[in-house]
Amino acid sequence: MTSTMSYDALVIAAHPDDAETQMGGTLAKLAQKGQRILLVDLSDGEPTEFAERGVRAQQAAAAARILGVERTCLGFQDRLVSDTMEARLEVARLIREHRPRWVYGTGEACVHPDHEAAASIVRAAVFLARLDKWDQVPGGERLAGQSAWIVERLFFPHCKMEPAWSDFAFAVDVSGVYDRKREALTVYESIFKSEGDRLLALYEAEDQYFGRLVGVRYAEIFRAHSPLVVDDPTVFAPGVHA
Amino acid sequence: MTSTMSYDALVIAAHPDDAETQMGGTLAKLAQKGQRILLVDLSDGEPTEFAERGVRAQQAAAAARILGVERTCLGFQDRLVSDTMEARLEVARLIREHRPRWVYGTGEACVHPDHEAAASIVRAAVFLARLDKWDQVPGGERLAGQSAWIVERLFFPHCKMEPAWSDFAFAVDVSGVYDRKREALTVYESIFKSEGDRLLALYEAEDQYFGRLVGVRYAEIFRAHSPLVVDDPTVFAPGVHA
Amino acid sequence: MTSTMSYDALVIAAHPDDAETQMGGTLAKLAQKGQRILLVDLSDGEPTEFAERGVRAQQAAAAARILGVERTCLGFQDRLVSDTMEARLEVARLIREHRPRWVYGTGEACVHPDHEAAASIVRAAVFLARLDKWDQVPGGERLAGQSAWIVERLFFPHCKMEPAWSDFAFAVDVSGVYDRKREALTVYESIFKSEGDRLLALYEAEDQYFGRLVGVRYAEIFRAHSPLVVDDPTVFAPGVHA
Amino acid sequence: MTSTMSYDALVIAAHPDDAETQMGGTLAKLAQKGQRILLVDLSDGEPTEFAERGVRAQQAAAAARILGVERTCLGFQDRLVSDTMEARLEVARLIREHRPRWVYGTGEACVHPDHEAAASIVRAAVFLARLDKWDQVPGGERLAGQSAWIVERLFFPHCKMEPAWSDFAFAVDVSGVYDRKREALTVYESIFKSEGDRLLALYEAEDQYFGRLVGVRYAEIFRAHSPLVVDDPTVFAPGVHA
Amino acid sequence: MTSTMSYDALVIAAHPDDAETQMGGTLAKLAQKGQRILLVDLSDGEPTEFAERGVRAQQAAAAARILGVERTCLGFQDRLVSDTMEARLEVARLIREHRPRWVYGTGEACVHPDHEAAASIVRAAVFLARLDKWDQVPGGERLAGQSAWIVERLFFPHCKMEPAWSDFAFAVDVSGVYDRKREALTVYESIFKSEGDRLLALYEAEDQYFGRLVGVRYAEIFRAHSPLVVDDPTVFAPGVHA
Amino acid sequence: MTSTMSYDALVIAAHPDDAETQMGGTLAKLAQKGQRILLVDLSDGEPTEFAERGVRAQQAAAAARILGVERTCLGFQDRLVSDTMEARLEVARLIREHRPRWVYGTGEACVHPDHEAAASIVRAAVFLARLDKWDQVPGGERLAGQSAWIVERLFFPHCKMEPAWSDFAFAVDVSGVYDRKREALTVYESIFKSEGDRLLALYEAEDQYFGRLVGVRYAEIFRAHSPLVVDDPTVFAPGVHA
Repeated sequence: MTSTMSYDALVIAAHPDDAETQMGGTLAKLAQKGQRILLVDLSDGEPTEFAERGVRAQQAAAAARILGVERTCLGFQDRLVSDTMEARLEVARLIREHRPRWVYGTGEACVHPDHEAAASIVRAAVFLARLDKWDQVPGGERLAGQSAWIVERLFFPHCKMEPAWSDFAFAVDVSGVYDRKREALTVYESIFKSEGDRLLALYEAEDQYFGRLVGVRYAEIFRAHSPLVVDDPTVFAPGVHA
Repeated sequence: MTSTMSYDALVIAAHPDDAETQMGGTLAKLAQKGQRILLVDLSDGEPTEFAERGVRAQQAAAAARILGVERTCLGFQDRLVSDTMEARLEVARLIREHRPRWVYGTGEACVHPDHEAAASIVRAAVFLARLDKWDQVPGGERLAGQSAWIVERLFFPHCKMEPAWSDFAFAVDVSGVYDRKREALTVYESIFKSEGDRLLALYEAEDQYFGRLVGVRYAEIFRAHSPLVVDDPTVFAPGVHA
Repeated sequence: MTSTMSYDALVIAAHPDDAETQMGGTLAKLAQKGQRILLVDLSDGEPTEFAERGVRAQQAAAAARILGVERTCLGFQDRLVSDTMEARLEVARLIREHRPRWVYGTGEACVHPDHEAAASIVRAAVFLARLDKWDQVPGGERLAGQSAWIVERLFFPHCKMEPAWSDFAFAVDVSGVYDRKREALTVYESIFKSEGDRLLALYEAEDQYFGRLVGVRYAEIFRAHSPLVVDDPTVFAPGVHA
Repeated sequence: MTSTMSYDALVIAAHPDDAETQMGGTLAKLAQKGQRILLVDLSDGEPTEFAERGVRAQQAAAAARILGVERTCLGFQDRLVSDTMEARLEVARLIREHRPRWVYGTGEACVHPDHEAAASIVRAAVFLARLDKWDQVPGGERLAGQSAWIVERLFFPHCKMEPAWSDFAFAVDVSGVYDRKREALTVYESIFKSEGDRLLALYEAEDQYFGRLVGVRYAEIFRAHSPLVVDDPTVFAPGVHA
Repeated sequence: MTSTMSYDALVIAAHPDDAETQMGGTLAKLAQKGQRILLVDLSDGEPTEFAERGVRAQQAAAAARILGVERTCLGFQDRLVSDTMEARLEVARLIREHRPRWVYGTGEACVHPDHEAAASIVRAAVFLARLDKWDQVPGGERLAGQSAWIVERLFFPHCKMEPAWSDFAFAVDVSGVYDRKREALTVYESIFKSEGDRLLALYEAEDQYFGRLVGVRYAEIFRAHSPLVVDDPTVFAPGVHA
Repeated sequence: MTSTMSYDALVIAAHPDDAETQMGGTLAKLAQKGQRILLVDLSDGEPTEFAERGVRAQQAAAAARILGVERTCLGFQDRLVSDTMEARLEVARLIREHRPRWVYGTGEACVHPDHEAAASIVRAAVFLARLDKWDQVPGGERLAGQSAWIVERLFFPHCKMEPAWSDFAFAVDVSGVYDRKREALTVYESIFKSEGDRLLALYEAEDQYFGRLVGVRYAEIFRAHSPLVVDDPTVFAPGVHA
């Protein structure tokens, strides 16, 4: 039951496994630090090519347990996720219900149409969630009973279907929890079965590659919706080439 | 005397007042936190348009005292700073002498030719400083007696002569020390005299502007030489629009 | 009554106060030169966070009077402005009705979803307005009785919620009319009340900042839909650094 | 004799024919309007592939006459133009001597090394020319006797060896003077002889192409060193698609 | 009848004449090499400004014959082409029906709203076409009876209404078939009549211009949806400047 | 002895091992296809951090043998490679001597100063090599006795010290020869010893990562100096997502 509980972070992705491949290490790390995190799958990812209906939901639940996070599904139709006002309001409602400080969405996406829609829905929902007086907005009844909620930061992990990002905002060192990420991804094996464990190995190659670029074993990379602000520049770990 | 002392940070700029206008708030803040910082002026900035020779050096010394940092000058000729191998090695030598964890240089610059040269010199010097065995390099004698030194991070503050940066890497909140920055800049008044205190007010407008964009009163913005890596995404302060 | 009157320029924005903050100085200047300008608010901006319903409309009317422009509202719902074909045709209809030589819309926008929709609606509407024979287009009846109208130029002022533009197309010197802009913005005080007059001061900091970059006291910056063409390069005022 | 005369504009290019191909129409137009313009060739362009030594200088003189401009040559060595401090100071000296309001240089260039050097030399020279007190600068004697000179605008025409510019700053309509440009280019026929008049026809295709994009028969396109500022947005001619 | 025939390539554009102006030469060339190509017009382009209803369809048929390709029309309404899920599924259905190895769509487009919609529809349709099990997707019945189809490459020709592309992926040398392209475009004369054959001449100027940039008489330029991969770098023809 | 032999391709890099890590697979592949390839190291890479002087030269020779290519060294000083006119002419001389159809240089580089210099030297040298009549150029004697040589294509492999390229021009599938590349890199083990074989594994992760992005096991990515031109778009292998 996720109903009225508040979370530190919401991760809103189109399909089960999106969050895990994109930022499973960061999730494991934040969970280990005690953050309460809710994965929100816009769709259940069904039908899936290589598994029977229902298998993916079980995998999704198992992966969440491994990472130490909770999970819910909004029930939009896989393949047909659409950036409608209704979808925006539904996600805004969820954000106001769970009052997260951080939201992780989907960055600029041009490969999978569901991802493209998700990117737009989440960005809009974070904005709409902060507004008040929805009882005075025809069409906005869904948000009327809730308090406004201001998300502190909206981040976008890199989607493995998209081109490499030459200019991400920051990387997170996930070397210490990489076994956990690998374990969570392995759960989905059957839906990746056409390529055996090779696809997982290749996903791992991405995390290794960006890890090397920033001087750690494994890294996940992110963009940010708003410009970053820090207390001072010493918060950043050393770079490989300064 | 700056000779063999080690510093937490080196700020290497073409002229006195460059560092102050670009990142005077960050310097004051880091100094207050106890960092030992050395400003390195590649040139003494002489001659200057509105003041007699020597005035600027006194101003530079006063500004450094106000910010709580030390200062030295490499004696290159103002207006004629040139990206030569000799300049690179001289700056590398200085870096190895002072062994800073952080270096602040000059970003991509296309207005002032001295800044353009400084940008290139510092970037190369940070790299050369990390290499060993200079006694075996004909032409590299200057670095021969020193140990290699690996700078952790090379950052570039925004130069107020350059276009706005739409995509800086991070901003530093300098609201709490802004009086100190203003005081340090005021010291240079005579060299800005053609425009009275108006130029200072306009410089302040930039820091206010970027402050508003990131949700604080005053901010200074930076780019980074290498991609940024953080322990987790919670190190960033809230954004104005998430 | 705005019905069949023609205007020199239409400024089409999502909410009252958008046009004023983005290009209030340019509007005052053009009005002083005798241009007839119509501000078109897609929505009435209600409900607004810090004021009772109806207050904003009065403020909008007052601000328009101060700037010397007229104003109308299309009645779309604030927060739910949506880029539908109906919205595009409605704006195209308005353009054909008022036959402006210049239209000012909203640039690429990713913070406020209403702005994002407005950007797309206006761009499409300017295109649709130029086409003929709408009586032969099922669904295009709204435009059927009107003559085609070719807008000469579609410009986009910079929205203060968006990142700084490093590469705007041109700035307009609004120093001579800045009091007028300040006065128009002050009218909206109550809807900005959470931050007192500080927000207005910060908006002013942006105009000062871009002013300094181009060598004037206050400037507003713009992008253009189509590449710019001039009779010769002497139309541009001197630059700060050539 | 170009000695101490002042000019409205200086066009500083690496070789004879660069200015003509890049902005011959704009030159003809400005000359017709009464501007006094000096073409400065950094080198004489010798040796040239398809003509005897000396032929190109005669062509250059003829082309200048056709366009209604004057011409001088700084005598740097073709192919070996180098961005040295000496070259920068020499060009700064020339600028101070002729006190132009406008300078036209070479934009970012990566095909011809001479163009790349010219781009950098001119940009630096315009900056150095505005500085005072060169008598106090060791190495700057060349500028010591001259008054400082502030160029109002530095523009860069598009070089026909470079990739298309998707984002030029503005185009100049040169339809009315295109015969003049064609005539000036034809003068150089012998040095283009490997391709007959075909190369000229292809250069013309570029001017036609950019003309069509901006709605005129022939256009030349430019970038600007500093952001553009206008009195108001009505200075721009209508766009093809607004 | 195009029903169940398979094609080597589908070219999916908003209006008759889009494909011809953008890549008529490439089409002629591929057809000469024996490829079976189907042009898919999303709309019939009616009404058109300068011709009676029905004329354009005859022209479209004639142009296809000249280029050696076939043609069909999906019957969406000109001017009102909209990126709906229904449109995406309809195009996906067509792709699965004709099983092309290559699809040519519309690139990033911001001038004509129909083109913008077409760009998005085709990109999504190519993705949806590759998915299986549509019988299990409520709303996806249209694709249920068909086998999945994986398009090898999705390319985007340059639209002549858009800005120049400084960074296209590749050009195709169409010098040898340019007469054929010219002939196909001439067919549409009456719909271009406002500008006589001048518009065609200007379109030709673009192909000449990009031809010169890549060292051939006429070229058409393309972007690619996915990064390009080649067996080795010798597949590319020589460049003008290497 | 490399003296007057002609080669199909020259690969000009700053240090031994640069070419191998960047494009070792492509080299092995081209060599297997019968191309005669010469690796040109601008410097011998000495001193190197973890090995005695001379070791690297032996490794370089061994690596070349494994890849099936030849190798020479121009003797510039490691760490101090400088973009001088002399260096440009020396490389141009080498190009004219060996008359390669393809040259592989170094792309835009901002980490290692030697790479930055190499990038500039090679680009200029390819241009200078194509010019005639050097006997008439004071300072160009070095090229005087040679015939001009026009390189067909200048490509830039991705340097593993640089940020990821989001927009490379093309990838080469090197899956079939990857053992050969691995073997060639292993030869350099001692100079990478600080990180054991881990660095090699990480380099491999990059090739795997870009391989997955383009749908093969291992890929190397390239940029091109001039825009690419192909006979038709069927030369490209299928993409992962079309």
